[in-house]
Amino acid sequence: MTQHRPLACVILAAGKGTRMKSDLPKVLHRVAGQPMVGHVLSAVRALDPDHVVVVVGPGMDNVADAVAPYPTAVQHEQRGTADAVRAAFGLLEGFDGDVVVLYGDTPLVTPDTLRAMVAARRQPNDPAVVVLGMRPDDPGAYGRLILNARGGLEKIVEYLDASEEERQVSLCNAGLMAFDGARMFDLINRIGNSNAKSEYYLTDVVQIARSNGMACAVVEAAPAEVVGVNSRAELSEVEKLIQRRLRKAAMDNGATLTDPDSVTFCVDTRLGRDVIVGPHVVFGPGVVVADRVEIKAFSHLEQVRVDSGAQVGPYARLRPGAEIGPDAHIGNFVEIKNAKIEAGAKVNHLTYIGDARVGAKANIGAGTITCNYDGYAKSHTDIGAGAFIGSNTALVAPVRVGDGAIVGAGSVVTTDVEGDALVVARGRQQAYTGWAKRFRERKQNEKAKKA
Amino acid sequence: MTQHRPLACVILAAGKGTRMKSDLPKVLHRVAGQPMVGHVLSAVRALDPDHVVVVVGPGMDNVADAVAPYPTAVQHEQRGTADAVRAAFGLLEGFDGDVVVLYGDTPLVTPDTLRAMVAARRQPNDPAVVVLGMRPDDPGAYGRLILNARGGLEKIVEYLDASEEERQVSLCNAGLMAFDGARMFDLINRIGNSNAKSEYYLTDVVQIARSNGMACAVVEAAPAEVVGVNSRAELSEVEKLIQRRLRKAAMDNGATLTDPDSVTFCVDTRLGRDVIVGPHVVFGPGVVVADRVEIKAFSHLEQVRVDSGAQVGPYARLRPGAEIGPDAHIGNFVEIKNAKIEAGAKVNHLTYIGDARVGAKANIGAGTITCNYDGYAKSHTDIGAGAFIGSNTALVAPVRVGDGAIVGAGSVVTTDVEGDALVVARGRQQAYTGWAKRFRERKQNEKAKKA
Amino acid sequence: MTQHRPLACVILAAGKGTRMKSDLPKVLHRVAGQPMVGHVLSAVRALDPDHVVVVVGPGMDNVADAVAPYPTAVQHEQRGTADAVRAAFGLLEGFDGDVVVLYGDTPLVTPDTLRAMVAARRQPNDPAVVVLGMRPDDPGAYGRLILNARGGLEKIVEYLDASEEERQVSLCNAGLMAFDGARMFDLINRIGNSNAKSEYYLTDVVQIARSNGMACAVVEAAPAEVVGVNSRAELSEVEKLIQRRLRKAAMDNGATLTDPDSVTFCVDTRLGRDVIVGPHVVFGPGVVVADRVEIKAFSHLEQVRVDSGAQVGPYARLRPGAEIGPDAHIGNFVEIKNAKIEAGAKVNHLTYIGDARVGAKANIGAGTITCNYDGYAKSHTDIGAGAFIGSNTALVAPVRVGDGAIVGAGSVVTTDVEGDALVVARGRQQAYTGWAKRFRERKQNEKAKKA
Repeated sequence: MTQHRPLACVILAAGKGTRMKSDLPKVLHRVAGQPMVGHVLSAVRALDPDHVVVVVGPGMDNVADAVAPYPTAVQHEQRGTADAVRAAFGLLEGFDGDVVVLYGDTPLVTPDTLRAMVAARRQPNDPAVVVLGMRPDDPGAYGRLILNARGGLEKIVEYLDASEEERQVSLCNAGLMAFDGARMFDLINRIGNSNAKSEYYLTDVVQIARSNGMACAVVEAAPAEVVGVNSRAELSEVEKLIQRRLRKAAMDNGATLTDPDSVTFCVDTRLGRDVIVGPHVVFGPGVVVADRVEIKAFSHLEQVRVDSGAQVGPYARLRPGAEIGPDAHIGNFVEIKNAKIEAGAKVNHLTYIGDARVGAKANIGAGTITCNYDGYAKSHTDIGAGAFIGSNTALVAPVRVGDGAIVGAGSVVTTDVEGDALVVARGRQQAYTGWAKRFRERKQNEKAKKA
Repeated sequence: MTQHRPLACVILAAGKGTRMKSDLPKVLHRVAGQPMVGHVLSAVRALDPDHVVVVVGPGMDNVADAVAPYPTAVQHEQRGTADAVRAAFGLLEGFDGDVVVLYGDTPLVTPDTLRAMVAARRQPNDPAVVVLGMRPDDPGAYGRLILNARGGLEKIVEYLDASEEERQVSLCNAGLMAFDGARMFDLINRIGNSNAKSEYYLTDVVQIARSNGMACAVVEAAPAEVVGVNSRAELSEVEKLIQRRLRKAAMDNGATLTDPDSVTFCVDTRLGRDVIVGPHVVFGPGVVVADRVEIKAFSHLEQVRVDSGAQVGPYARLRPGAEIGPDAHIGNFVEIKNAKIEAGAKVNHLTYIGDARVGAKANIGAGTITCNYDGYAKSHTDIGAGAFIGSNTALVAPVRVGDGAIVGAGSVVTTDVEGDALVVARGRQQAYTGWAKRFRERKQNEKAKKA
Repeated sequence: MTQHRPLACVILAAGKGTRMKSDLPKVLHRVAGQPMVGHVLSAVRALDPDHVVVVVGPGMDNVADAVAPYPTAVQHEQRGTADAVRAAFGLLEGFDGDVVVLYGDTPLVTPDTLRAMVAARRQPNDPAVVVLGMRPDDPGAYGRLILNARGGLEKIVEYLDASEEERQVSLCNAGLMAFDGARMFDLINRIGNSNAKSEYYLTDVVQIARSNGMACAVVEAAPAEVVGVNSRAELSEVEKLIQRRLRKAAMDNGATLTDPDSVTFCVDTRLGRDVIVGPHVVFGPGVVVADRVEIKAFSHLEQVRVDSGAQVGPYARLRPGAEIGPDAHIGNFVEIKNAKIEAGAKVNHLTYIGDARVGAKANIGAGTITCNYDGYAKSHTDIGAGAFIGSNTALVAPVRVGDGAIVGAGSVVTTDVEGDALVVARGRQQAYTGWAKRFRERKQNEKAKKA
């Protein structure tokens, strides 16, 4: 039996992201509905690490909140990546295992790649450092990874320092590294800052390790996986890449996306088999859709569960806490919030249902509003199974409409309605013969006088 | 005068489409609003064939329904394409003419290509078999079409069996074939299943024909035309290709699409000249739009006729049976179903008009609802020419509002309104001075006590 | 100090644009919310020219209106580009300075390119003509610009007349030209029409200038800048290019676009820092959005100002004259027109607010409608600070609701409400026990009898 070897992950998230032009720290900008650092944490979590440390800049309490319960270490000045890793040393004191260093602004990194790095670290040749490499279409000014005859990593050369021959190398430095914890502290502490910017660069660690006779290794990843984000335009590129992943996964899983490019997913969107999603649909966080559901065009869902066979949209807005029962219908210009719509119920047109239950097979007429808020508190509306709510009805919560009751169109319901009753709450119709004609004549006379 | 030579088309549609992960047979999945097999039938119909046979799998009654009145033949086991064609032999018994074999999952095939295949079949050299070829950008593992010195088809070699030289050939097998009916039955019956999967492959027919001294021929088509669908991702690729065709046709015909990539068409959408379609518009089946109409962003139309000069949207939902008259205006968050909106009428905001007529130049206020359903039946609302319906009105059908009548805002109209009358049906306004102030004070006291 | 040298710009806009299949002159078709000729005028205006002349065809009064106050000259027959420029001569009589000739259907041309042309015209070698060149990916059938040993322009050869060697030249004629006004009139008047179409081609001017020993020069522009529009498909391509520019500018400026490709801008859209724009948002003309605003999916804005910290959408329709105050919330299926929503006010669901003021921190319930139109005039609704309007309320304008007042749900408010009062205007609720049950039984009996 192999003994458990501990794993620590250090996520560098102290960068200000000046080119984002934002008051928000860079790693809190969202892709697929989640802050970038959250994506990195998700990848890390899949490895079940013993320690995770997120390195933040001074005053980044909102990053600390976002990554809790993982601890943060503060890098007080921006003095390079090695300095950032050193900021985590206090929280890793005495740690003896493997350490993976990641970046909070490369949200597309996958667990498989991290696992491959850890596995490479644990190879029999026991490399002190494993560097993640990639082969981008255009290697441009990336640092190049120079291998030795045994396939080990010999050095990382910055593009500006590289010879013409080295520049021909297509294998580039992607930035992520894995370390043998036992040797890491000493190696990184020996990195100096004798360079143009007086910064401490983590890439220097390879040279130090090699000059001390330690092996170094390379693991390759697809370039798309390690795209970093430094501007809003790059953020949108990463969003596009992750959306493509999510759309493909949904289709592979048995959902039809009529126009995949127009559907926005969150990382946690779950769609069943034979789900049909029309064009222009937005999934916010926390959406679970069962089999054989149709989500029509222009729908917007967030923290919602939709049961099998339901029909949603077009133009349906399902807000947090909505639960749409099996075979229920939610139609156009309908907003549902914190409400359970039970099996086979219909809410088809121009309606707001909030803080409510709509019983099985109930029918909610067009223009129905649950008046759930009095300016101070939210109250509940309960509509029984098989009830029929006439159009343009206001239901003033707290209020109950019993099973099988009918509410006449245009009513304002302020007290409970018993089951099987009819309730009407509206004014009486009064007619004034010829009034409209006289009104028009008066208006036309007025216009004539003005002219 | 040339004599009519009969034509039969056999459409293979028995594939289960396992990779679709669907309970629906593959050929019933829709592109541009129509099942794939419907597109193939449309192409076939353009050739006015004497016989059409659709080969389905056991239990595919829904395919049979979809292709009716064309007859179906059942292939009981999936034993290869030749076996599938053989399943159609019973319905073609004694047929003497040309036979085209197509696939129900290649919906982009055009009538022109089918015509070219038939024409090639009828060339003086009288080929027994015509195979459709294509030259894809990446020929990959497609079977190659090997021509002889006279330009005839010598053989089809599967990629795995092909020599290095044969693999250099860019002309690939696209799958569709045309046959001389007189020779087809015998040729296909001679196809064996001595291969790895023990299946009967239609491609083997070429070799059999050639070894009997019969000529074979090739017709080329654009690769995009014969893209097949085996997964939801491929379905979305085919959808994209057909949408591109439809968008281009609409623009060539004189419509402006502000953002073509965001407009979804159906195969039968018809747009007039100087129609402007904004971003994010969805056309379902059966939409006809006359000249000089503007369809603004986020509109959704299905089985609708829109007359010249009308304005629709943004956020207009026009459902089956809506007829929008000349110069009528349909505005935002408005749903129209089975209703005629006559010339110059305005339905501008937050309204549901169902099972109704709105007379010429009538004005429907914001929030108007036709209450057309009592839980059992749909009833009709008739609004006369020049009528003015005040905002937030419920019209309880069946009900008529006469020409030129005015309905006061917030009314519930339950009985007919005569022409030129004013009708008001609402509660009287009652004021309670200072009540709101006291309410707030009470609420704040309650809050204070709790704290 | 350099003396001011006058500048004139001539914009050719007489083309009918037959391939557009439109009743609208080609240059009036819009991209990014503005007629194409308006984009050209914007670029021209950045150079602060002394004269601008737009050459139109006969009867193009709508173009003249669109370009006012700039004068137009009429080209009576379509006899070529040189003839079109000659049509402007009358308005430029005696002009002594530089003249730039542009096209009304190349809306992407930038001020920088025009400035470079003028600067080249004013070089010490004093060229009589400056021609704009480009190097398209596929030079195809464009005319080629042939340079001489000194880097000057020697001639323009049409593709059909070009030698094999000349066709290898990648520098193509983009059409725009700058002239020394003193020499232009004579040079252009000497252009003949001895060619297949008997037209007067402006490109011939180079040959005439060179044969008279005058220098000619070339300035290069990116091909994307001089894309011309001859069809609706090309119009959509130009729209795509300009949208890409505008999206990038918004992101560079510090706005997040979740799905940039799905956001439609106008040329004058202004977004602040840390603005977040969700998928599927349409900006019409005249929108200014301050910092930290979120515009959620499916929103549509036109001639609107949104203050900092406000939340808009999803499905918000902000029409001309809407002013959304700081931290105000506009929610789903809400239309705001010509109305001021003051700081912190909330209009969250299914509401129409037109011709109104909503005071600070007021809360507008779902389904509220301002009844601003009586068929003849628009009237104003004034809602005080902190007022609470219950759901499904109709406010019949002109009407005032005082500060802190409460309006009960389902009311129709026809007279002013004093501050801090409660007002209720609705029918009384009446219940009929068991009625619904009897109704259902009756309906079921009816059905049974029919069967």
